[in-house]
Amino acid sequence: MKTGSRITTLVAAALAVAGATVVAQSGRDPLPSWNDTAAKKAILDFVAKVTKEGSPDFVKPEDRIATFDNDGTLWVEQPIYTQVTFAIDEVVAMAPQHPEWREKEPFKSILAHDRGAMLNFSIQDFEKVVAITHSGMTVQQFRDTVKKWLAEAKQPRFKRLYTECIYQPMLELMQCLRDNKFKVYIVTGGGQEFVRAFAGPTYGVPPEQVVGSMGKVKYEYNKEGSPELIKLPEVLLIDDKTGKPEGINMVIGRRPQAAFGNSTGDQQMLEYTGAGDGARLMMLVHHDDAKREYAYGVGSKIGTFSDALMAEAKKKGWIVISMKEDWKTIFPPAKP
Amino acid sequence: MKTGSRITTLVAAALAVAGATVVAQSGRDPLPSWNDTAAKKAILDFVAKVTKEGSPDFVKPEDRIATFDNDGTLWVEQPIYTQVTFAIDEVVAMAPQHPEWREKEPFKSILAHDRGAMLNFSIQDFEKVVAITHSGMTVQQFRDTVKKWLAEAKQPRFKRLYTECIYQPMLELMQCLRDNKFKVYIVTGGGQEFVRAFAGPTYGVPPEQVVGSMGKVKYEYNKEGSPELIKLPEVLLIDDKTGKPEGINMVIGRRPQAAFGNSTGDQQMLEYTGAGDGARLMMLVHHDDAKREYAYGVGSKIGTFSDALMAEAKKKGWIVISMKEDWKTIFPPAKP
Repeated sequence: MKTGSRITTLVAAALAVAGATVVAQSGRDPLPSWNDTAAKKAILDFVAKVTKEGSPDFVKPEDRIATFDNDGTLWVEQPIYTQVTFAIDEVVAMAPQHPEWREKEPFKSILAHDRGAMLNFSIQDFEKVVAITHSGMTVQQFRDTVKKWLAEAKQPRFKRLYTECIYQPMLELMQCLRDNKFKVYIVTGGGQEFVRAFAGPTYGVPPEQVVGSMGKVKYEYNKEGSPELIKLPEVLLIDDKTGKPEGINMVIGRRPQAAFGNSTGDQQMLEYTGAGDGARLMMLVHHDDAKREYAYGVGSKIGTFSDALMAEAKKKGWIVISMKEDWKTIFPPAKP
Repeated sequence: MKTGSRITTLVAAALAVAGATVVAQSGRDPLPSWNDTAAKKAILDFVAKVTKEGSPDFVKPEDRIATFDNDGTLWVEQPIYTQVTFAIDEVVAMAPQHPEWREKEPFKSILAHDRGAMLNFSIQDFEKVVAITHSGMTVQQFRDTVKKWLAEAKQPRFKRLYTECIYQPMLELMQCLRDNKFKVYIVTGGGQEFVRAFAGPTYGVPPEQVVGSMGKVKYEYNKEGSPELIKLPEVLLIDDKTGKPEGINMVIGRRPQAAFGNSTGDQQMLEYTGAGDGARLMMLVHHDDAKREYAYGVGSKIGTFSDALMAEAKKKGWIVISMKEDWKTIFPPAKP
């Protein structure tokens, strides 16, 4: 049936461009790594509501926005934030050019691999480390350095690249939202340029959809007269706690309908999201799976999930995702 | 032919979703308000190059970014920037609550409608006016105030709403780029929230695609306990000159392939755009049409187009658009 198959090809080609919508309507389970618990149901109910034309909760496709925290929400943040490990490794790599660091804190402790001292670093110590490792180069050079590091550095427990220590169920959730015309953003306390360096290939999130802590940049000309953006050691925004809705306004300029986090740093983002009209979805990943990942929360320095946050979640109807109960698998299959 | 028409309907429906691409391939002139001059040819050549798969200049659809200045590039900026007129009108509207302004500059001159004094306002005078009219309210309240003002205020010469004093050829250019999968941004020296208030209905540009001069915002709770973003009088970024590439990096995080401006404030944005690899398109609108719009440039306080900028354009191959020669029409048809 030559004509028939030609028409089929035409339809298929047109549908391939239309893409996303059709996939979502195919009947395939969009969240195969989620157990059939309340969390999964809440996601599917929310998506059904906001995408149903004529429903009071309907949101026009071009207005659909979802925001995801990164550390502890999309990838592993234990035993220490990946970006901190990166900064420490960079200090070690830069040390030959800085002989004075051998006698100067906080660099001295880092070069001596003194984990005890590092765990007790003050905010000021960290600021010094971040300033020296995250400024003085072009934005592109910085991203290249991050990419190169991420291509080799491995998470100590799972012995995988950090970009492979990402949560399969959250990848499916992001894709499900995209299939339903949501613009998916990362809103991270981590550095905006650090996360931009890997968010594309790792999560399918382009640079303009990464909101993060920002440093100033300066427009300058290099020796060849070409313009460059140089990273400066001055902070423009700490995209954490109240900084998250502030950063969302700066870069996105409107309120998301759905927000996903895992710690006290995400409380205001969820609160801001929940304060809008119509159907809303706020979720917190709870790390309660010591066997497959980590169990932490109250009292953890990394990714604090305080009792107050749990109480707030209950009060406001935010859904707490139990990694142990709600997720069939944690990570994507290992790459060959 | 029932089956046939059903298939046609299916194809049509799928194509309707695919939309944009198909329109661009229909053979219809995408730039009907442009004369057949070098400027129009340069646009069409650029679009053909970057969208042709296999061409060395091909840019993947998801990587296509174009940035447009607003004042003087997308809408009229003479005899005075629209946002300044707004601020002055706001001072007048707020005056009953501020009896002290009758004796206090710069408010005194504004309330006395002293145009001579206003033309000689210093930067500090303007800062005072902007601070009082652009902060102390929520982001949403501010946008609502702008919308309300724009729904009534008229441009003094053309006796049309400011949002109707927009350039038809530039609207077509934005749509042509969108039809070819470009993400179209506004990068304006004007206030980000001011431009976000009308960029959607006026230009088809959503809030997240408006980069502008930014003030700080503060996350707070109102009397009902609801979270709000309050505009503060502190400046975060002046999105003009070197601030344009800096703002582009902050919000977009990558280099555009095409950039459009009209004054010295746009030079660095065009320079930054032009410094990338592959095909590039940089254009400057030159206001040389006193009859249909305005003629100004060198020496104009509003929208300065200096001799140095003209020399730079020639040196770098930026295309200077002559409103007089290159544009068939200036504004869209009057609304009934």
